[in-house]
Amino acid sequence: MLLEAILHQPKSHYAYAYDHETLHIRLRTKRNDLDNVYLIHGDKYRFTQEFIETTKMTKFASDTLFDYYEAAVKPEFRRFAYAFRLESGKETLYYNEVGFQEEGAQSQSGIGMLESPSGMFEFPFLNPADVNKPPAWVKNAVFYQIFPERFANGDASLNPEGVEDWTPDAVPTRDNFFGGDLQGVIDNLDYLVDLGITCIYFTPFFEAKSNHKYDTIDYLKVDPQFGDNETAKRLVNEAHKRGIKIMLDAVFNHSGFYFPPFQDVLKNGHRSRFAKWFYLRENEVKTEPLPNYDTFGFVASMPKLNTENPEVKAYLLEVARYWVEDIGVDGWRLDVANEIDHQFWREFRNVVKKANPEAYILGEIWHNSMAWLEGDQFDAVMNYPVTNSILEFFAKKTIDAENFMGRLDAMQVAYPKQANEVAFNLLDSHDTPRLLTIADGDKDLMKLAATFQLTYTGAPCIYYGDEVGMDGGNDPDCRKPMVWDEDRQDKELFAFYKDLIGLRKGYRAFRDGSFRFLSAEKGEQFVAYERTDDRNRFIVVLNGDDEEKTVKLSGLSKGTFRPVSDGNDAYPVKRGKLSVTVGGKKSLILKEQ
Amino acid sequence: MLLEAILHQPKSHYAYAYDHETLHIRLRTKRNDLDNVYLIHGDKYRFTQEFIETTKMTKFASDTLFDYYEAAVKPEFRRFAYAFRLESGKETLYYNEVGFQEEGAQSQSGIGMLESPSGMFEFPFLNPADVNKPPAWVKNAVFYQIFPERFANGDASLNPEGVEDWTPDAVPTRDNFFGGDLQGVIDNLDYLVDLGITCIYFTPFFEAKSNHKYDTIDYLKVDPQFGDNETAKRLVNEAHKRGIKIMLDAVFNHSGFYFPPFQDVLKNGHRSRFAKWFYLRENEVKTEPLPNYDTFGFVASMPKLNTENPEVKAYLLEVARYWVEDIGVDGWRLDVANEIDHQFWREFRNVVKKANPEAYILGEIWHNSMAWLEGDQFDAVMNYPVTNSILEFFAKKTIDAENFMGRLDAMQVAYPKQANEVAFNLLDSHDTPRLLTIADGDKDLMKLAATFQLTYTGAPCIYYGDEVGMDGGNDPDCRKPMVWDEDRQDKELFAFYKDLIGLRKGYRAFRDGSFRFLSAEKGEQFVAYERTDDRNRFIVVLNGDDEEKTVKLSGLSKGTFRPVSDGNDAYPVKRGKLSVTVGGKKSLILKEQ
Repeated sequence: MLLEAILHQPKSHYAYAYDHETLHIRLRTKRNDLDNVYLIHGDKYRFTQEFIETTKMTKFASDTLFDYYEAAVKPEFRRFAYAFRLESGKETLYYNEVGFQEEGAQSQSGIGMLESPSGMFEFPFLNPADVNKPPAWVKNAVFYQIFPERFANGDASLNPEGVEDWTPDAVPTRDNFFGGDLQGVIDNLDYLVDLGITCIYFTPFFEAKSNHKYDTIDYLKVDPQFGDNETAKRLVNEAHKRGIKIMLDAVFNHSGFYFPPFQDVLKNGHRSRFAKWFYLRENEVKTEPLPNYDTFGFVASMPKLNTENPEVKAYLLEVARYWVEDIGVDGWRLDVANEIDHQFWREFRNVVKKANPEAYILGEIWHNSMAWLEGDQFDAVMNYPVTNSILEFFAKKTIDAENFMGRLDAMQVAYPKQANEVAFNLLDSHDTPRLLTIADGDKDLMKLAATFQLTYTGAPCIYYGDEVGMDGGNDPDCRKPMVWDEDRQDKELFAFYKDLIGLRKGYRAFRDGSFRFLSAEKGEQFVAYERTDDRNRFIVVLNGDDEEKTVKLSGLSKGTFRPVSDGNDAYPVKRGKLSVTVGGKKSLILKEQ
Repeated sequence: MLLEAILHQPKSHYAYAYDHETLHIRLRTKRNDLDNVYLIHGDKYRFTQEFIETTKMTKFASDTLFDYYEAAVKPEFRRFAYAFRLESGKETLYYNEVGFQEEGAQSQSGIGMLESPSGMFEFPFLNPADVNKPPAWVKNAVFYQIFPERFANGDASLNPEGVEDWTPDAVPTRDNFFGGDLQGVIDNLDYLVDLGITCIYFTPFFEAKSNHKYDTIDYLKVDPQFGDNETAKRLVNEAHKRGIKIMLDAVFNHSGFYFPPFQDVLKNGHRSRFAKWFYLRENEVKTEPLPNYDTFGFVASMPKLNTENPEVKAYLLEVARYWVEDIGVDGWRLDVANEIDHQFWREFRNVVKKANPEAYILGEIWHNSMAWLEGDQFDAVMNYPVTNSILEFFAKKTIDAENFMGRLDAMQVAYPKQANEVAFNLLDSHDTPRLLTIADGDKDLMKLAATFQLTYTGAPCIYYGDEVGMDGGNDPDCRKPMVWDEDRQDKELFAFYKDLIGLRKGYRAFRDGSFRFLSAEKGEQFVAYERTDDRNRFIVVLNGDDEEKTVKLSGLSKGTFRPVSDGNDAYPVKRGKLSVTVGGKKSLILKEQ
């Protein structure tokens, strides 16, 4: 046993409350090093042989270096003391907070390792207030991202000056406008219902100068190009009627250049009554050569807001409350979330969840985000590591199946299960090339990526227009006006997305069922995995290779499968094995009959 | 290089803000595996060769399996992206959030590992609001624990019925009383000044039935046996006049049996208006065979308070505020702190720090406590792992020097440095045998333990009477009335404590200077360590062996040392080495001249 590889950390993603009665306990070991891992556990106030229990742990994830084991337990009195029994060949070791010990060994104090709770790991008490419990609807949701200026023009009277023609061949630039607005979204809600969408994620629609509206001027007002707050309320109501929720974009890290308090500071420097709304480093404000105040990046026009200042806090928290409580939106996506202080986000959560306990709080964080997912801040984060893994494996083909599996499994371990269930799984956005373009125009590869996205754990999000075959390179090219001309829409692709969304919504197994790779070999572009809940079992096979492949999947329990697309062929499991043949760049989704 | 042993975790005790401008970054490696470790770092928004910096990391701790490296850095724009360069013999590896890579290797996306911030570890932004910044006074404090019923009787008019005689040979039982009170403490404040004490930690003095007062009846009232709230206020004022602060004991996890709301619940069950103040599992309350409501342990008379209930929260937070703001106490020690929800403690911190930003919040937690030390809850915890290591090495002699070092160093790594600087280092209490008794009556061993305690990082606490030679086994024997009879006091021991406290208070090196073991060998009972700050350098040598030992310490920089007790002998460092001879069970404290 390689002791240096063995890792457990109490009160972390290795030991957390999944719900009000269940703890998940995890352990890391060197890959392929152990035969069996057991969790030994009891209540610390009666940690005696009579009451100590043993639960076998399941290997639930693996990466290049490590295996990860997990067990779910329900402590009767909500208190939990525990250790691990590790078996490898003839070797058996016990592992607790004090370290490693051989079977039957006595500690230096003369007490056997399992005879006293004092050296055990502990989950001291399962308090419901501390459980990270995301809104239940999110894991069942299918998101659709709308960039408001480019989805649909429903009210020409609001068109900005110099608006350009809305044609499938229109060329977006950094500065031009096409006249998209909220009425356009209202007019097309039924299109989204048809596709199967259940939540719209809007990039900002608050008053701002640019076409992307990330440069906020007034956080409490819909941009006049898009309508007004009444239009927003009507949009929310119409969407809700159709079972569609609405998530907005909160750009609280920095304001826009034309935010009135910043304009005042630009004019009056440290004498401005808003001087403490920002982080000035000198009395007079300079924007060059580098801004002498804190900014997003080094961008002088994006001054960082001082979220420790009670006035700023009060203003932004009222913004958070207003849109949820008065307008009725269902969630906030938090821009540059990890550069704002944790204290602010804790208060933000209290305000938002008070306004609507079912509101979804989603952080934009590109790196490990555990520090925000402990139950006091966000429900989930945008799942960029999963985005990148999917794109690199299916669309760019720069990593192999083993690497793909390792990276996805590492993310399953990195967060509590409930955060992964509502993680925001996007494949592209207004900030990246479109999926079809990343796949170099290869629709088959695009479909493989989307199939994985829609059959994997986490809430999928489709960027507007992907479903009808829109392409586009980096910003601004990825922000073309939505293609509404039916002759220019890829109807086959729309049907593909619609079917897949229907499948996901039809079976819980794809949403919070268990996930297990069945095939993910070194050097291969082929993966297969099983998704199971108490009712159904699916096998998804994705062949990224150009050639047809036949693979024998193993380790399966008994059953007969049929393709969801065509129930005629039967795939019986024989001696734990199942043989599948999949064409080049094709997929096969099997359902147990 | 053993990759499986290498560990770093962003936003944890491996990467935290030490103060408003400094980050500490740590890395774990296999013990004795690496030659050099470097931190490679820059601002993520200009992560280019021109701006990337390299800082050599210092090996600052070691345990049985691992070495730990650390670097302190001050990011100019408060944002920090980083990776590690690991060198072992001719092998060089880079380690970042994505994994390990060889020197000069390109990632699969074709970008060199250090050419883009996207794979780097990140400390996204150093927000002052999130920094765990304990009150500055605590690391300079010397605590003294008083069990109010047993320290001094200053007001005979308050004596409870059946009070027993206060004699050095008095025998405490579970239920008897001796008449100690707050006036008694006031009367003896000058004794504590003489000893050098700067903060008193009181076990509870609120109204309760028992002699230990952990069974609270009224959290807002001094127990009538001890005085009243005016006496408490006078005590605080008199203590403050003498430079002594006061810390109280908050027993918020559970109430006493006679707490009026619980009495009401006992009578009225689920119909009580206080039913939701506790966690009832059935409509009618039963105390046997097991209580059918949540309790501390399985003790029916200690009902767990529902700290998620807004009414309970309001009551307890008012208690927290009242004693700090209206009476003026300087800190709270939180009983059974880890069984109460984190949300409660976050609100508690806000209330207490608003009442007095310099108030000390100390959690009673026996296990790894990182989840409470992230800046939003406690300043520090009771340092039981250090307590146990000191007792097992010096007093019980059940572990050797190497094990002792490993356990202490592991605790240095387990928490941020600022939390260790104000950790509460006790050696005994009202819940354990007294130090002299743990050392089996051997005053020399007791002195070695105390010398270590008073020259180590963390705030030392002396249990009342230890300084005059009181002994006592487990509760209730450790709760004898304080020995005030001068003929029965060990004056030599008092002078020893007083000198050592004076030394600690005289030199910052013992409080927040750096700490480094110079000798801690396998099988030995002998340790030596160096304590250094920018002004002074000390070497402390402690010989737990019965025999005199001569040891050559090495790895020292130039200088000449002299014993603090007797400046005549000179100990010059020669070629990095220093030879010391220490008698059996004796210590030697050397100061650089």
